[in-house]
Amino acid sequence: MELRNDRLLRALARQPVDRTPVWMMRQAGRYLPEYRTTRERAGSFMDLCRNAELACEVTLQPLERYPLDGAILFSDILTIPDAMGLGLYFETGEGPKFRKPVRTADAVAALSLPDAERDLDYVMNALRTIRGELNGRVPLIGFSGSPWTLATYMVEGESSKDFRHVKSMLYGNPDTMHQLLDLLAQAVTDYLNAQIRSGAQVVQIFDTWGGSLSTPAYLEFSLRYMEQIVAGLIREHEGRRVPVILFTKNGGQWLEHIADSGADAVGLDWTTEMSDARRRVGHRVALQGNLDPNVLFASPAAIRAEVARILDSFGEGEGHVFNLGHGISQFTEPEQVTAFMDALHDISPSYHR
Amino acid sequence: MELRNDRLLRALARQPVDRTPVWMMRQAGRYLPEYRTTRERAGSFMDLCRNAELACEVTLQPLERYPLDGAILFSDILTIPDAMGLGLYFETGEGPKFRKPVRTADAVAALSLPDAERDLDYVMNALRTIRGELNGRVPLIGFSGSPWTLATYMVEGESSKDFRHVKSMLYGNPDTMHQLLDLLAQAVTDYLNAQIRSGAQVVQIFDTWGGSLSTPAYLEFSLRYMEQIVAGLIREHEGRRVPVILFTKNGGQWLEHIADSGADAVGLDWTTEMSDARRRVGHRVALQGNLDPNVLFASPAAIRAEVARILDSFGEGEGHVFNLGHGISQFTEPEQVTAFMDALHDISPSYHR
Repeated sequence: MELRNDRLLRALARQPVDRTPVWMMRQAGRYLPEYRTTRERAGSFMDLCRNAELACEVTLQPLERYPLDGAILFSDILTIPDAMGLGLYFETGEGPKFRKPVRTADAVAALSLPDAERDLDYVMNALRTIRGELNGRVPLIGFSGSPWTLATYMVEGESSKDFRHVKSMLYGNPDTMHQLLDLLAQAVTDYLNAQIRSGAQVVQIFDTWGGSLSTPAYLEFSLRYMEQIVAGLIREHEGRRVPVILFTKNGGQWLEHIADSGADAVGLDWTTEMSDARRRVGHRVALQGNLDPNVLFASPAAIRAEVARILDSFGEGEGHVFNLGHGISQFTEPEQVTAFMDALHDISPSYHR
Repeated sequence: MELRNDRLLRALARQPVDRTPVWMMRQAGRYLPEYRTTRERAGSFMDLCRNAELACEVTLQPLERYPLDGAILFSDILTIPDAMGLGLYFETGEGPKFRKPVRTADAVAALSLPDAERDLDYVMNALRTIRGELNGRVPLIGFSGSPWTLATYMVEGESSKDFRHVKSMLYGNPDTMHQLLDLLAQAVTDYLNAQIRSGAQVVQIFDTWGGSLSTPAYLEFSLRYMEQIVAGLIREHEGRRVPVILFTKNGGQWLEHIADSGADAVGLDWTTEMSDARRRVGHRVALQGNLDPNVLFASPAAIRAEVARILDSFGEGEGHVFNLGHGISQFTEPEQVTAFMDALHDISPSYHR
């Protein structure tokens, strides 16, 4: 099946494009009324993830509204720990929680590697369904949480402000921490490879909580395991390169290290200046980002000014994938995203001549 | 009155010391059982802040336990907006809240500058009482929130995860945002000068939320107003320099800019590597930090290893004030702080010969 829009793949390979490609983290989600309608039909959030037809429906919804250059699998970052039997659940208005947090060496030793194709078959079914429906329109992006990010949720049992429990393990029992991270790195590798075999054409590793670590702890407990994953991934499939994007939120201080991980691209949150990032690592990797999602609460003129600023900060030449610096807020008005897309599509061609 | 321990002032001036001085953000607080006893006697948190005798008592408590080189005024960072009539209150288990958030141009225009000596007299009384009780033992540190950090609480009305309201103002109505920040910069300047006249010998500006901004927004909406404050502060008092410390949490990417602000020292959270920071700006300012407070949940041996690592990362020579990279956790065991102090006092003299 021919890929009719390969801008995203070309930009990730730092090849020429006619305009800067764009997708948005969490582009299928609660800010869209049509998503909320499907979600109501599905039942719980995890029911929606587990239903291939409905997961496909919400994955495609933002593509109907906006000229996006990629579709991202609708799923959760915590599917792996759920498949390990930790009992993922969601309470209204709160983040994800686990019924059985993992806080001791014994609890870590009792974990076993999920079989991605069998235990996470609902994800693979969703990918196959979406890929069929996309029919070559844009590339399909698969994803996983990073080992460190999965471990924070598994040890804390929920979203944490201070990471007290997981850091107690990191500093107090580093061997146990490494054992857990090693298992997770293997699980993520298997999971992403299964996603690639099921149709994902790009994969992104979300290291949402890497930025909570000191520099040496980041290198030892987060980046090292992402490097292990990148080294174990299928990098060619269906005759095409499968690019890998690493996104460490608040990882701006470590760009040189992240760019050396073997990944094709580095995702940036909005705190890092694109021109600095390009100067520091842009000759080695593509860069993805980095509009503050809160800009989408301002006027179309203000949105346009920020989009122009970021394009200018990256400058002319190849290797820029436009994105938000973090997931789009559920409170965003869909029309504001239209203003974002219009600005990008108006302005970005002048950077690709 | 003679200052018997001036290590902190000497290190902030990058002068020789016999060992690395130390204090801890939030060193007077809930992790100490004696604090909890005083707090119960006082009533609410703000009752404790408003009672000069009891605020003095809790300020001195950590000095009785640990060989600290500074005392920090016990108070809240949100006293200024409270004095502006926003109605600060605390709900059990939650962060600070305001009864009257400030979200419109009209609400900003209706604010007026507090008279620090009159409207915040309880802070000045506490400082005079503490300074008398300290009797030259160690220097007394005063503090304030930064304009941007105060503004985030004032606009959001409470602690925020996404800063949606304050960033809507920043991107959507930058003139209103600047009007609010300008008023706050004037208020903070007056407030810190009143603190200096009342006995503060060092002042720190806490920019807790500057790290939530993009680089250009940080420079325009946070750092610029801190520079304005630094330029307006009393820098000599009682025949001594009054050093200013700027602490932007998650500000590691902007150290060069922060070091150019006119401040004497830059506070670092634990994500920034001390050796990098020293190479980048340590010839211009002193550096303060930066143990991850979560290290205090590990074994004494692990605490010692991290203290040694940070001392080594700064290296030999002057200009290092040891601190945590953020406030100490309420769940810390007081004995763990003893292990921290023991390690620092054992190891640090070898870096000052």
